[in-house]
Order: sequence, then structure tokens, then C-alpha cells
Amino acid sequence: MSSLPLTRRAATGLGLSFFAAPALAAGPTVPRWGVHEISLKASVAGNPFDVALTAAFTDGKTTLKVRGFYDGDGTWRIRFSPPAEGVWRWRTTSPVKALNGQAGTVMATGPRPGDHGPLKVVAGYHFAHADGAPFRHVGTTAYSWAQQSDALCAETLATLKASPFNKIRMCVFPNVAGEPIFPFEKAGDGWDYDRPNPAYFRRLEDRVRRLAQIGVQADLILFHPYDDKTGWHAMTAARDDRYIRYMVARFAAFSNVWWSLANEWDLVKAKSIADFERIGRLIQAEDPYGRLCSIHNWRDLYDNGRPWISHASVQNGSAVMDDSRAQIFRDVWKKPVIFDEVRYEGDLTQRWGDLSAENLVQRFWHGLVAGTYVGHGEVFKEGVRWTAKGGHFTGHSVPRLAFLRSVMEAGPTPGLDPIDRTWDQHLGGKAGTYYLRYFGEAAPTEWAVDLPKDELTGGERFRVDVLDTWNMTVTPVEGDFVMAKKDAYYLHDPARPTVALPGRPWMAVRVVRI
Amino acid sequence: MSSLPLTRRAATGLGLSFFAAPALAAGPTVPRWGVHEISLKASVAGNPFDVALTAAFTDGKTTLKVRGFYDGDGTWRIRFSPPAEGVWRWRTTSPVKALNGQAGTVMATGPRPGDHGPLKVVAGYHFAHADGAPFRHVGTTAYSWAQQSDALCAETLATLKASPFNKIRMCVFPNVAGEPIFPFEKAGDGWDYDRPNPAYFRRLEDRVRRLAQIGVQADLILFHPYDDKTGWHAMTAARDDRYIRYMVARFAAFSNVWWSLANEWDLVKAKSIADFERIGRLIQAEDPYGRLCSIHNWRDLYDNGRPWISHASVQNGSAVMDDSRAQIFRDVWKKPVIFDEVRYEGDLTQRWGDLSAENLVQRFWHGLVAGTYVGHGEVFKEGVRWTAKGGHFTGHSVPRLAFLRSVMEAGPTPGLDPIDRTWDQHLGGKAGTYYLRYFGEAAPTEWAVDLPKDELTGGERFRVDVLDTWNMTVTPVEGDFVMAKKDAYYLHDPARPTVALPGRPWMAVRVVRI
Repeated sequence: MSSLPLTRRAATGLGLSFFAAPALAAGPTVPRWGVHEISLKASVAGNPFDVALTAAFTDGKTTLKVRGFYDGDGTWRIRFSPPAEGVWRWRTTSPVKALNGQAGTVMATGPRPGDHGPLKVVAGYHFAHADGAPFRHVGTTAYSWAQQSDALCAETLATLKASPFNKIRMCVFPNVAGEPIFPFEKAGDGWDYDRPNPAYFRRLEDRVRRLAQIGVQADLILFHPYDDKTGWHAMTAARDDRYIRYMVARFAAFSNVWWSLANEWDLVKAKSIADFERIGRLIQAEDPYGRLCSIHNWRDLYDNGRPWISHASVQNGSAVMDDSRAQIFRDVWKKPVIFDEVRYEGDLTQRWGDLSAENLVQRFWHGLVAGTYVGHGEVFKEGVRWTAKGGHFTGHSVPRLAFLRSVMEAGPTPGLDPIDRTWDQHLGGKAGTYYLRYFGEAAPTEWAVDLPKDELTGGERFRVDVLDTWNMTVTPVEGDFVMAKKDAYYLHDPARPTVALPGRPWMAVRVVRI
Repeated sequence: MSSLPLTRRAATGLGLSFFAAPALAAGPTVPRWGVHEISLKASVAGNPFDVALTAAFTDGKTTLKVRGFYDGDGTWRIRFSPPAEGVWRWRTTSPVKALNGQAGTVMATGPRPGDHGPLKVVAGYHFAHADGAPFRHVGTTAYSWAQQSDALCAETLATLKASPFNKIRMCVFPNVAGEPIFPFEKAGDGWDYDRPNPAYFRRLEDRVRRLAQIGVQADLILFHPYDDKTGWHAMTAARDDRYIRYMVARFAAFSNVWWSLANEWDLVKAKSIADFERIGRLIQAEDPYGRLCSIHNWRDLYDNGRPWISHASVQNGSAVMDDSRAQIFRDVWKKPVIFDEVRYEGDLTQRWGDLSAENLVQRFWHGLVAGTYVGHGEVFKEGVRWTAKGGHFTGHSVPRLAFLRSVMEAGPTPGLDPIDRTWDQHLGGKAGTYYLRYFGEAAPTEWAVDLPKDELTGGERFRVDVLDTWNMTVTPVEGDFVMAKKDAYYLHDPARPTVALPGRPWMAVRVVRI
């Protein structure tokens, strides 16, 4: 169901009335990138979740085919998010008479104020909104926050709103206990895997809408290996496919939705790579908007070169301990890389949850210099445990990640790229105009401001800032640095070849062209 | 022309005489994995290099289709290397009458003493010979050694024979001046790209045979970007394909041949990825033996996941500065990784040729601990420059690489793998039985013998050796280490939790199960 350009001639098979003159004044409207919902009623024999229902939406230039979904009570819904302003006509197709041949129009107006549209991959390794606004990914994880009480969910949303995070990884199937409402109807002691529970998904989509309101992307994890008792990770392929179609039909119209096929795919022993490939291709075929799509690993990296994968979603306990290490993942896959799990801040005895705040923040900075992105998580013994259920933060990394995001926002668009990569420069930015060097635990007292020669000829002027990434300060260095050739590979300012540093850890230097 | 199992029934199309009773006594013989050559004479109009000639060889179980090649003077040759002992029958097919329908048999006897057969990929990340003997890759590069004078070639071969190197990267088209003999016939001021020069390739294959005699693999680089004046990298696709078919027909029967599609493929501006894909698939189709095949990069990594690539051949100036960095390349591609170019030992001002011997040797050790392999090169201003033309070594890394190889030979089969990877353990080996820790430039005075818990339950006994990788000494530590649980992730010997180290750089510790 991919987006296809459609000429009037090619579209005549849809019926001429499809292109009748618009009747704009009285019709429904929806902001560009918002959600227009059509409700249809019918009474059917058999499983209503197996009723085929699609609608074609066209503005005369682009046609999108959108699947409808059953929402209980004899009601089917079709959700459409217009990618462009203007009049969109639609017409349904279904073997069920009451659902077939329904038609209408919707006028897509300008976007809501502040809505920059869904995300896409830009410049190979970064993200931007549909209107071109940059998206500087600073992610977090709270697997089962959406399944908690309304009060705890409200607290989570308030926490997120005040945080630097603009993406959250969250499970569709809960991985820890929450409210007693479940994704499938109960059947005896078990589940009727053939009947999704609309109320459950309605509650989940309420969370997704609220995330959109505060500008947070929802990375929806479709499968995970932690539901041995429920078996939701081990359904048949036909049931998996029905569930995937249902998820895409319900959620794809929300422009802040991302798809994550699995958490720790290589622990989902009930599924093979062939299963994930089928599911990945199914999402690609079903999702008319091409939302971002990834698959998260435990130990074994998935082949993130696969065409249905928009970006790598990596778990690795050590990759972002060094920017030169992290950038290899970019170089190999030639896609954006998000290190979604790099060990969590916390006080657990398990090594995946024992990071100091300093160490977690350090990983974000190494990732930034590498031209990659990093995700946060927090698991303290006391309290609710953010990464399980949401709530509030106990750790000390979050304010530092806000500082990091402010540095990202002030940096090059759409993001930083490693400079003179493969030579261990430890410099990220944009050759010729912006350089960021990060020292991690090292506590140097000076740094040679040697800039690799790419995009420099000599005579360029730079200002230099010393950043304390832990204490969140920016200290401008007095005066300019004027570049001149140093040797075959570097330029520097012969009058001031180094910059003084305070001998503390977690420092960075930013060199910006004037 | 891949190897196909062939039943008698399926093979009847080849003619019943093909399976007539063997006449063994008087027929020709060839050792298994050796080269049996058939010569045929004909006189043709047109370009003899465009004459189609193939032969099918079968032992009743396996049938290989082998292309013949024109060797000048009205002579075509077909070279066959039997993968199994026994009687092989052959029959030719060609539109040229004198070359068509020729048939015969050859008896494949036991291999030559010491010949373990061609290499294959084993255990995902390593190499072994066809008879199962391990192959511990220690490579070097001498791009245009084969095109030098016979005297210099003889010196190169003597140098290699006395060295630890068992693979050499070498160009088919020379990249520096050598003897005045060229791969194509001269045509006015330029070249007749439609006519390979048999005498040139005969000379090259003499070098390949001599390498086989001293147990060295020949990694033949088919294209490189350094022949702007000759244009050999920028021929038409049809001429490239003719050259590739010619190379495979002439060289594939030599069991020490590897294919390298290019040196620095991303600098071969005349060729696109689509060209290299076509060439890679052509080699795969033409080579009946499936010799190892790779493509070497400058800055942009090729997608080494492609099915025609047996192993990654990587240039990177910094990847093997850290084993945790190097192992990422394995994890991503799930194939053997050879860091064929990691900067050369030398005294050039260019950074690709300025490594100290210590630094180059260090890179080999990091690569070993990562479960990868590394290549040597040497470029000193004085003398012949090994990596250009061969000759002898000027640097100081080679004896240390011989020591490294001795450690590899005494290590696990088929090679070392990173242990508890993704957790920055810096341990290579085989969990439960063999651990190698390498410290590079660090000069610790002790090391905690903490072994990750995989494959250990407690009670296992280990001996420990301290290795000085620069001074080439192995110092056994007195007494055994008996493992007991230390914490959730490690075992150690509570009675002796650490081993003393001398506080020098380039040390390693080897922990071996008793």
C-alpha cells in the first residue's frame, strides 16, 4: 500500500465521480499531518477483525491506500493523515456491502501551529521533519508506561514534557504488570489471539496522541521476548500478520509513530529472521506513510541494511564508549544509527542497569561526536523504575542530556558527522564550519586546536568554546583562531596552537567558524 | 559455472560415452587440488579471445564446468583442479569444430605431501583448508612485485619463504613501473583492450605457482585506480567481462588464488557499485571452485554482506587500534574480516606510511583478540619499498609477526573469537578453554584474571602465560589458577586473583585450560 503518483487518466478506474468538482465549503477539514477519521457501521458474520476494508485517498497527484480497522460495536474506522494541503477524495473498497463504495472528501488545511510533520531520514544519517525542521534525537525508554494507571501515565507525560527527550521506546504488549486490560480478548485461562481488544488499543493510542501533543515520538515495539506466559510473541504467522495490519491501520496515521519490530529480536526464539523479514515487508506494504522502522537487538545485530529498515536501533554495552567505535555502525550500514540501549543509569547489580549518570551522559556525547544518536534509560531499585513504568526520574543524567540537546540545537543541520573518519580524529561536526571534540573521562589541561584540512584552505576564523558537559557550562575562549597550514593534514593558528582546559573530566571543545 | 551434483540420469545429455568404463592404467594423473591442463589447437577467424570453449568435468558425483582460455599461437588451454580423488571424465563444448567434443579422463590421486587444499570460510569468521587444516591468516601486501625483474621476484619469494606471511595482496595490473611487458597488446600509442597479452599472464601465473610452492595465498587484485595513463580500470563493461572471464579461466585452477575485485574500489571512479556487482556475480558464476573473493575500500566500506563476497577486506586507519572496535565489523557482516590495510610500517610523511613497527604489531594483536585478521605493509624511503615492488624487509615488525603467528598456531582452532562481546572485555579466544588479553601501549603492573562466566561453572584449572609481544618471550606463571565464582559475571581464583605484569608496553596474558 505504498504511495503512488496517480494521473487522472490512470485513476479513471476508480470512477469518475471520484474526481467530481470539489464541494469545499461544508466539508470536513483536517490539518496537514493531522488525523481525519471516517467511521462506518456494518453487521457481519464471522470475525470482524478479518473484514477487508481499504480506502483510496487522492488529491489528484498522490494516492494513498489506507486500511480500515475494526473498533468494536459494529464500527470500522479509517484514519487518514494528509501529507499535503488541499482537497482529498476518498472511496472505500470492501467485500462487505455496507462498507463498500463509501466516498467523501476532506480538506487538508495548513498544519497545526508548531507541527513540523512526520520524520524522515535526511543526509543519510540524520532525521528531519517533513517541513525540513531538524530533529535532534534524544531518546528514552519506558517499556510499559502506557499500560499503567491514568495517574501514573499523567505523571510520565508531565515528566517527559519537562525533559529533553523527544522520542520514547514503548511496548505494545506490556513487559511488566500494569492495568488489568490486555491486547487480546480473554478466552478461558488464555487468550483469543484472533480477537484484538479494541479498548486496549484505544487506551494505547490515547497515550500516543498525548505524546504527539508534547512533541515526543512514539517508537512502538511490536514484539518482545518477555511475555512467555501470554504467548503474544509466539503466535502463528497468520495471527502476527493480522496484528501487524491492525496496528498499522490504527496507528500509522499518527505522525509521531515509529515502528520497532522487536525488542531484543534475537531473544524472541519463537521467530526466525524469515519471520521478521516477512513482518518488516508487511509493514512497508501496509504503511502508506512510510513511518520510521527498525528492529532492536540483544547480542546479534540484525542486518540493518535491509530495505524496510529506516535506521539501526542498536543495543550494545560498549559501542558508545568511544566515538570512533560508534561511527563504524554508520559506515557499515549507511543509515542513521540510534544506540537505543547502552546500559541504563541505575543501581542494579545487573550490569545492564548499573551505570553512573556520568557514564551514561558520556555515552551520549561520544555518540554525538560519532554522528549517531543515543537513548536513555533509568532503573533504580527504589521507586517506580522509569524504564519499566515511567513516572519520574531518580537519576542525575537528565539535566545533562538537556544541556547536550541545547548543544545539538545550536549545532549544524541536520546533525553532526564524523570528520576525517577512519583516522581516529575524535571530531564530529561539519568540515570547514563546526568541530566538536569530547574528552570523556580524560582530564586534559590543554588541547591542540588542529583542524583536519578538509574544506579549509587557511585564513578561516573560528571562535572556540570550552564546554563542561557535566556542570553544564559554556565558556567562550577570548579572541579568534585564524587557521593556517600546520602540516600535510592539519591547519591551526600558529599564534595560539592550543586551548587551555581545566583538567576536569567530561569536558568538550567546540570550534565554530565566524 | 557453479559446481552441481549430477546424477547419472541427469547427466545423460552429456553423452553415454562420457560414462564409459574407466581406463585408468595409461591415463594422465594429477594430485588432488593440483592443476591438470588440457591443450587444444585450432585456427579461427576473428578474435581468438572471444572463442567460447568450456569443458565439463565429472566424477559421477560432482560436475564442474570450466572455461578454457586462449594462450596465443593457436593454442587454447583448459585447467582443472580436482576437488576429490578418483577418475574425472571431461568433454568440451565450443562452436569451433576443432575445440568441440574433445574428451578424455584424468585420474586425481592423493594430494601432494603438505598440500591441505584450497581455503574455505569456517565457523563463520575464520579460514581452513579443504582437508580441515587451520589457516591462521598473517598477510602482507606487495602490489607490483610480480611485474618486477626475475631477480627481484626471486628475492621477494625468498623473503616471503622466510617470513610469517601466508597471504600476499598483489595487482594483476601493475601500479608501479616494472618489466616492460603489459597485460594488453600495444596498439599505436595505447592498448588493444580486446587482446590480452598471454605472455604477461603466463609470467604472472608463474609467480602464483611459486607462491603456492612456499605455501602463500595469492590475493589477486583485479582492478585499481592507479592506472590513469593506461586506462585499464576504465574499459567498457564488455571488455571488463572478457578480462574477468580470462582471469578466472587462467587462474582459478590454482588453489592458492583469491579474488580481490579492486584496491580502493571507491577511488575507481570509472566504475559504479553496479559495475562491481556485475563483476562479482560474474566471478561467482565463472569460478567452478568458489575461491575466496573480496573487495578492498579506501574510505567507503563496500556492503560486505553481498553474497559473492566471502570475507571483508577492509582498509581503515584506526579500526585495529582497539579490539572492541575491530570486532564490530565481524558482528555486522557475520563473515571473516581481514583488515588488509591499517597503515604501513614506514618513514613516509604520508600518514598511510608512517607507522612504527611497534604500532603496526600492536594492530595485529588487537585484530587477533577481536577475532579478525590483519595485513602488513612496509614503505621506507630508502630501498625498493616492499609494498610496491617486493624485495626484502627494512622494518622491524616482521619477526614480531612471526611470534604472533606462533601464538596463533598454538591457539584454538579455527581461530579466536571475542568473548562476551559487546561488553568491552578485550578478551579473545574460546570461552571455557582459552583467553587472550592484550594491553597495547598500556603498561600495567598487574591484571585481574577475571574470566567471564560463559562456559565456566567453577573448579576449572588454568595455566597462565605472560607474553611480551615485542621482545617475543613467553613466561609461564608458576602454578595453576582454579576458577570460582567472583560475582554475577566473572569467575576468578580467590587465592590468586591477579597476575603480575612487568609494567612494559606490548604485553599480553594467555589463560589456557589444563
